[in-house]
Amino acid sequence: MALYSSSVEYGLHCLLFLVDSSGAARASSLDLAEFQGISPSFVAKLFGRLKAAGLVTAIEGAHGGYQLARRAEDITVLDVVDALEGDKPLFQCKEIRRNCALFADSAPSWATKGLCSIHAVMREAESLMKQSLANHTLADLSERVQRKAPKTFSIDANAWFADRKTAKSRRKSSDK
Amino acid sequence: MALYSSSVEYGLHCLLFLVDSSGAARASSLDLAEFQGISPSFVAKLFGRLKAAGLVTAIEGAHGGYQLARRAEDITVLDVVDALEGDKPLFQCKEIRRNCALFADSAPSWATKGLCSIHAVMREAESLMKQSLANHTLADLSERVQRKAPKTFSIDANAWFADRKTAKSRRKSSDK
Repeated sequence: MALYSSSVEYGLHCLLFLVDSSGAARASSLDLAEFQGISPSFVAKLFGRLKAAGLVTAIEGAHGGYQLARRAEDITVLDVVDALEGDKPLFQCKEIRRNCALFADSAPSWATKGLCSIHAVMREAESLMKQSLANHTLADLSERVQRKAPKTFSIDANAWFADRKTAKSRRKSSDK
Repeated sequence: MALYSSSVEYGLHCLLFLVDSSGAARASSLDLAEFQGISPSFVAKLFGRLKAAGLVTAIEGAHGGYQLARRAEDITVLDVVDALEGDKPLFQCKEIRRNCALFADSAPSWATKGLCSIHAVMREAESLMKQSLANHTLADLSERVQRKAPKTFSIDANAWFADRKTAKSRRKSSDK
């Protein structure tokens, strides 16, 4: 099993639609889910975590939805990963160095002092991995994604989100 | 849950005892497990994987046991991790970029060409993490561990393994 589940893939794809300063920059979790063909209840759960971590804010009302809580340049991929997955370690250490048959009832201090050398190697690898995730922001990721797509995609996507907002407003008006 | 389970911790600790060129350099998985106070059946399973990956060889007979299949300088931490855990990915990608509501029945080639930008960021982080694990060998890890321990530990450990071998030989002789 991978360290990071589909939460990260779904969450990052959703957040990239909130980077755009036009139509989709404020969208409901339902619209983001339906636009991408993914589970609305799962996306709603992810946005609960992103909000709790202070990465998005929820605006109420017919023109409401989620928006980024700070500039896309100031939200790193690591921020999103930590918000969605918690601080998952690369390596599980059970400190078996304490159990050596030679130690009888209690391990001597030299055997348990500091980090286990194996754990230290794993921590170094984890730190490099996390530093790499911290080097990418939603802004630069969005730029990469946009470079791949034709300009019409952004226009069509914004129109789709705008249509959904209009339909939602109409439903609210007719309910009154 | 961590990406790498206790298999890696247990496996690396066991292998470090096989680096030493003296008494413990050839030991059974049972002795290695009992010396470290860990599950013998689990350690036996791990050695099955290490053998299949070509990192250890099994020598039969009263003085037999596992030994490293190549020099400790030529076995990296990544080799051991891959042998014990398989090539676990950091990130699970379900290619949701194909599902966009605008694509109707099939996604256009620009949307699915190459690696998804999010996946690419994750792959970069994973690659740095694995490179870091590949930079460490059993030889340098063993040196670090040995620097922490008093010299008497190595002597006592070797004596413990030698005693086990002697006891095993005696049992075999009395069985004849």
